[in-house]
Amino acid sequence: MPLHPDRLFPAEPGIRSIARSLYEQVHSLPIISPHGHTDPDWYAYDQPFPDPATLFVKPDHYILRMLYSQGMRMEDFGVPRLDGEPVEADGRRIWRRFAENYHLFRGTPSRLWFEHALETVFGIEERLDAQNADRLYERLAAQLSEPGMRPRALYQCFNIEAISTTDSATDPLAAHDTIKASGWQGRVLPAYRPDAVVDPARKGFHAELERFHEMAATPETYAGYLEAHRIRRAYFKERGATSTDHGHPSARTANLSPAVAADLFDRVRRPDVSNEDAELFRAQMLTEMARMSVDDGLVMQLHPGSFRNHNPSLFADFGFDKGADIPTRTDYVHDLKPLLDVFGNDSRLTLILFTLDETSYGRELAPLAGHYPILRLGPPWWFFDSPEGMRRFRELTTETAGFYNTVGFNDDTRAFCSIPARHDMARRVDCAYLAGLVADHRLDEAEAHEIAHDLAYGLAKKAYRL
Amino acid sequence: MPLHPDRLFPAEPGIRSIARSLYEQVHSLPIISPHGHTDPDWYAYDQPFPDPATLFVKPDHYILRMLYSQGMRMEDFGVPRLDGEPVEADGRRIWRRFAENYHLFRGTPSRLWFEHALETVFGIEERLDAQNADRLYERLAAQLSEPGMRPRALYQCFNIEAISTTDSATDPLAAHDTIKASGWQGRVLPAYRPDAVVDPARKGFHAELERFHEMAATPETYAGYLEAHRIRRAYFKERGATSTDHGHPSARTANLSPAVAADLFDRVRRPDVSNEDAELFRAQMLTEMARMSVDDGLVMQLHPGSFRNHNPSLFADFGFDKGADIPTRTDYVHDLKPLLDVFGNDSRLTLILFTLDETSYGRELAPLAGHYPILRLGPPWWFFDSPEGMRRFRELTTETAGFYNTVGFNDDTRAFCSIPARHDMARRVDCAYLAGLVADHRLDEAEAHEIAHDLAYGLAKKAYRL
Amino acid sequence: MPLHPDRLFPAEPGIRSIARSLYEQVHSLPIISPHGHTDPDWYAYDQPFPDPATLFVKPDHYILRMLYSQGMRMEDFGVPRLDGEPVEADGRRIWRRFAENYHLFRGTPSRLWFEHALETVFGIEERLDAQNADRLYERLAAQLSEPGMRPRALYQCFNIEAISTTDSATDPLAAHDTIKASGWQGRVLPAYRPDAVVDPARKGFHAELERFHEMAATPETYAGYLEAHRIRRAYFKERGATSTDHGHPSARTANLSPAVAADLFDRVRRPDVSNEDAELFRAQMLTEMARMSVDDGLVMQLHPGSFRNHNPSLFADFGFDKGADIPTRTDYVHDLKPLLDVFGNDSRLTLILFTLDETSYGRELAPLAGHYPILRLGPPWWFFDSPEGMRRFRELTTETAGFYNTVGFNDDTRAFCSIPARHDMARRVDCAYLAGLVADHRLDEAEAHEIAHDLAYGLAKKAYRL
Repeated sequence: MPLHPDRLFPAEPGIRSIARSLYEQVHSLPIISPHGHTDPDWYAYDQPFPDPATLFVKPDHYILRMLYSQGMRMEDFGVPRLDGEPVEADGRRIWRRFAENYHLFRGTPSRLWFEHALETVFGIEERLDAQNADRLYERLAAQLSEPGMRPRALYQCFNIEAISTTDSATDPLAAHDTIKASGWQGRVLPAYRPDAVVDPARKGFHAELERFHEMAATPETYAGYLEAHRIRRAYFKERGATSTDHGHPSARTANLSPAVAADLFDRVRRPDVSNEDAELFRAQMLTEMARMSVDDGLVMQLHPGSFRNHNPSLFADFGFDKGADIPTRTDYVHDLKPLLDVFGNDSRLTLILFTLDETSYGRELAPLAGHYPILRLGPPWWFFDSPEGMRRFRELTTETAGFYNTVGFNDDTRAFCSIPARHDMARRVDCAYLAGLVADHRLDEAEAHEIAHDLAYGLAKKAYRL
Repeated sequence: MPLHPDRLFPAEPGIRSIARSLYEQVHSLPIISPHGHTDPDWYAYDQPFPDPATLFVKPDHYILRMLYSQGMRMEDFGVPRLDGEPVEADGRRIWRRFAENYHLFRGTPSRLWFEHALETVFGIEERLDAQNADRLYERLAAQLSEPGMRPRALYQCFNIEAISTTDSATDPLAAHDTIKASGWQGRVLPAYRPDAVVDPARKGFHAELERFHEMAATPETYAGYLEAHRIRRAYFKERGATSTDHGHPSARTANLSPAVAADLFDRVRRPDVSNEDAELFRAQMLTEMARMSVDDGLVMQLHPGSFRNHNPSLFADFGFDKGADIPTRTDYVHDLKPLLDVFGNDSRLTLILFTLDETSYGRELAPLAGHYPILRLGPPWWFFDSPEGMRRFRELTTETAGFYNTVGFNDDTRAFCSIPARHDMARRVDCAYLAGLVADHRLDEAEAHEIAHDLAYGLAKKAYRL
Repeated sequence: MPLHPDRLFPAEPGIRSIARSLYEQVHSLPIISPHGHTDPDWYAYDQPFPDPATLFVKPDHYILRMLYSQGMRMEDFGVPRLDGEPVEADGRRIWRRFAENYHLFRGTPSRLWFEHALETVFGIEERLDAQNADRLYERLAAQLSEPGMRPRALYQCFNIEAISTTDSATDPLAAHDTIKASGWQGRVLPAYRPDAVVDPARKGFHAELERFHEMAATPETYAGYLEAHRIRRAYFKERGATSTDHGHPSARTANLSPAVAADLFDRVRRPDVSNEDAELFRAQMLTEMARMSVDDGLVMQLHPGSFRNHNPSLFADFGFDKGADIPTRTDYVHDLKPLLDVFGNDSRLTLILFTLDETSYGRELAPLAGHYPILRLGPPWWFFDSPEGMRRFRELTTETAGFYNTVGFNDDTRAFCSIPARHDMARRVDCAYLAGLVADHRLDEAEAHEIAHDLAYGLAKKAYRL
């Protein structure tokens, strides 16, 4: 089933023809990918991707969760166990199992991303099924060994203008240095993600904190800790970083006095951190990060509201990022206030907000972003990076926040081949939305063209200071 | 106004024609009704239904609430008062009052169900109004006395393959035994609904508990109480039950140690149960029910989030189920965790979740059901058993949970004649939704046909182990 | 760009033609504006409106917030500072700045209101931009000095049948008396808005309370306080008021004993009111207002859920109503219960509920209004007074509450020229919604015509007892 040129466009012929015309102008714009999770080693060492199962199935928590939800075992898809017990090692068998259960993905964005990659990267227009699984596996495996399928070639082929990785505060960024030293012209930037040294409730926090102070060569005091952040942020910035990223359980912020904050720091360094202290420390650190961003110009991103590792036995067996992260209610109006009280009106700062709680779009996020100069709305995130999710985002935010308090699209992915698929989906859905506004005469078509361009390219570039 | 063959289909001709084609293949599939509230005596004794007012108005809380909301009195519609004061006894007058206010139901599913029943069961294609009220009453009354209008005949006529009733844990299930003994071939199954012996906050809990222990002949200890559940579940299962049902104020679950649970049981047996103890006991019992379901294979259903009997003076005058049950916010992510921590990965268990809080569809229910093997999503419930409610359900859950973590439709009704109407509505709305996915090229039409069949028939049969 | 006759209608030709036909019958109905914030002095003294910037930009918090959110300064749009420091005084420059940033309003209702006013009131069919800003300013300024542009002439021209202002409990209503004395035939009614003497957390509460007791000549006791309300309500009612209005942070109500309420009153009269006492006093006063409404027949309106003045530095510099009010979650099911327990079934009372929390539409508001005789749903409020907001309101409430538990439209505006624009938008969106129901055969077209008329005119008139 080849990709249909009108996919994701409204079926009504009048609106569809407007959507086509809008999309026509933006579909081949370069990709700005200011927030994602691709591996910088790919660009640094430009090694071929491994077999199709490792490329498409094993590392994709969207795919694994659906299979798991239907009673399948993680082991059968090659997901390594923490206890080292053997798991399926045969890529062909993993791929075949995936193919046999491919119907589960009907109606999901995973299916759309996967088929877009199959066709546009590998030229495969068949729908995967139990019958063609082995044949397609062989074909993909063969293609993956070709030079044109290496990361740098794909980067060019995908027409990426700039891509940001996400890197721990203690990451030496060696891959980024290697990329630079290589003379390759691709633009791969790090992003400062300090969660591991900011969240006392995270496994390994204390060891990570020690490493952080060592790297920055600062004393293990609160002042030294803050200085370490400044040093590491500068290190990231020198390597091209334009942003920081913060994944917190809630959007809570705090504005403690330096003395109270220093006391808190001392408490969270002890082994038995209370939940409230952990939450308060994360809250305070968001405000500190904002303060540093005012100084160094790094754009702040906040991704709150995921209950991580909800399934303890799965977590014990397989660790992080296996699809057992579940969204929770998030309050932005009260939680962000301490930070906004200090920095909300400071035009040097940009704080981009994401959510997993769509109820906040109309009630909280659009009203906040439609008022505070520092705030911008990030694109629909994670479970909502989907056609319906994107449509709801626009319908629920535009009337209050407009288009220019949003920041275009980012793909948020570690699945390299899905990057063009995701940007294409966003461009199509935005064009479809704009076409609806033109069709019922809320916008002129000329304006819609301008907005479509901004949503596909201009806003991301500007918001992330690229 | 005869029912339009395209009702509830999208108006856009292209999508509509796909919807028609999908619906064509599913509209006459047998009805699986795995959760409902019809009276088993109907099938056991096959007596004619009484007059039209008693069939359509008096027992229908959807209809009564709308009339009451506009200032009308329950008494005038024949709803019996608990104090025995007289109420309207003349079916004709009740029917006429309903007819005079029939415009209130514009835009509601009640109207669509009612008109479907009038036309398909009774052959009446006129819209009810003050002018034709008496005439239609006479006609309906006459028809109700015909043999073809008795419950068993209607069961056949409605093409029901299996229907489940909902029965208290202490119900002797005499009607179900009578049905079986009669040799009639209809399949009517009980479902185990133990709320009256599980919810200490419910009026009459202590008396019901005593009766429960007597029926099961178990000692009035916690161990005896759990054993009584096992005994009664087995009793239900012998009579065909495949499921249990739990209507709780919240989705809270608990996993107390046996000693702590036994202490709690002792406390809730006293007359002055605290709210927190009542909540905790209900929470613990959900986990115990899950444990028993792992053993006996009964599918669990959880219907949380209704604030029952919100209107105290109405409750004092007329009792339960008079339309004064109001939804409240429900938290599934934290509340279900204790149960999920124990049984979430146990593929022997199926737990079907319902909600009255649509904000949980995308944020909580789809992510949970799209991960935990035991979880499935029940169809839109109660106020959301409606065209828009069903559309939102699919739009908000499919992208994350897919179709195969949902369980098709159930009608949840005590209004017998509305059963075909409700299934027809669900089939139409699902076909309309699928047609939209085909029209914008997210699905092939062949896939959509397969899914339409599953949603109308296959998924319910499988999920409820029928 | 002249206004398109089909604006806000569905693009699908079949539905659009039904929408046109419905709208045709209602578009020129008189305007009932039972809740708004226009200045009664306008009608009393009939002075020309000042320059275009003062008419359209300076006082419009929807416009100011969007400009502010993009980093512009309030001062540059002529918003007076509380400290008296100078701000931009040149209307032309304010207007030009607005014009230069006019693209920010794409997709917002502000843009639709503004363009409707420009064309229908001033005959301007050009889109505002940096090039035509000065020319349009001159043209508008010239027109504003014409007699036909004075408030009373516009009132006639807008075809307003009745309009309600919103007035503090201590307002002497001099303007309303002047209007009456003038013999002018326009119907301008006050509405009793006692927040300033009901909310102890509000700045100036104690002084306002003193003034209130003085005006009513009642003792400063709780009994005297309640009596003062009765006296002032009667004063308003004599001047035509048919409603009261209550803007509270939450929907909380209480039903304290008179003695406990009197104690509470004593506490809130002291300078250091606790948050909980303030909340409880507001809660109790809603129930007292309901009690008085049962007696005097004034319709009650409750507007809960706005976190007022969220931005403290903006508030310090510019004061109230500058766009920094942010919605919060609102609970109606628990919060309204104390009031409903007492008055929920009293058909003498009408309580119209508004919300800024759309999650409550389907979960709480429609089920409550679809049951309690006193409750009606107000139209989408504030951020949701918009095409998508109105559509969601109907989609989320109609199936449960029907049309007849809603109260038609009110414009809620202080921007006089936007009144026809807002009513026109509501009529169009309601007709579009009804057309959809007709197109998929949920309603007959004849019924839809009747409903369209009720939504545009009849329901507001009836609900507000006009």
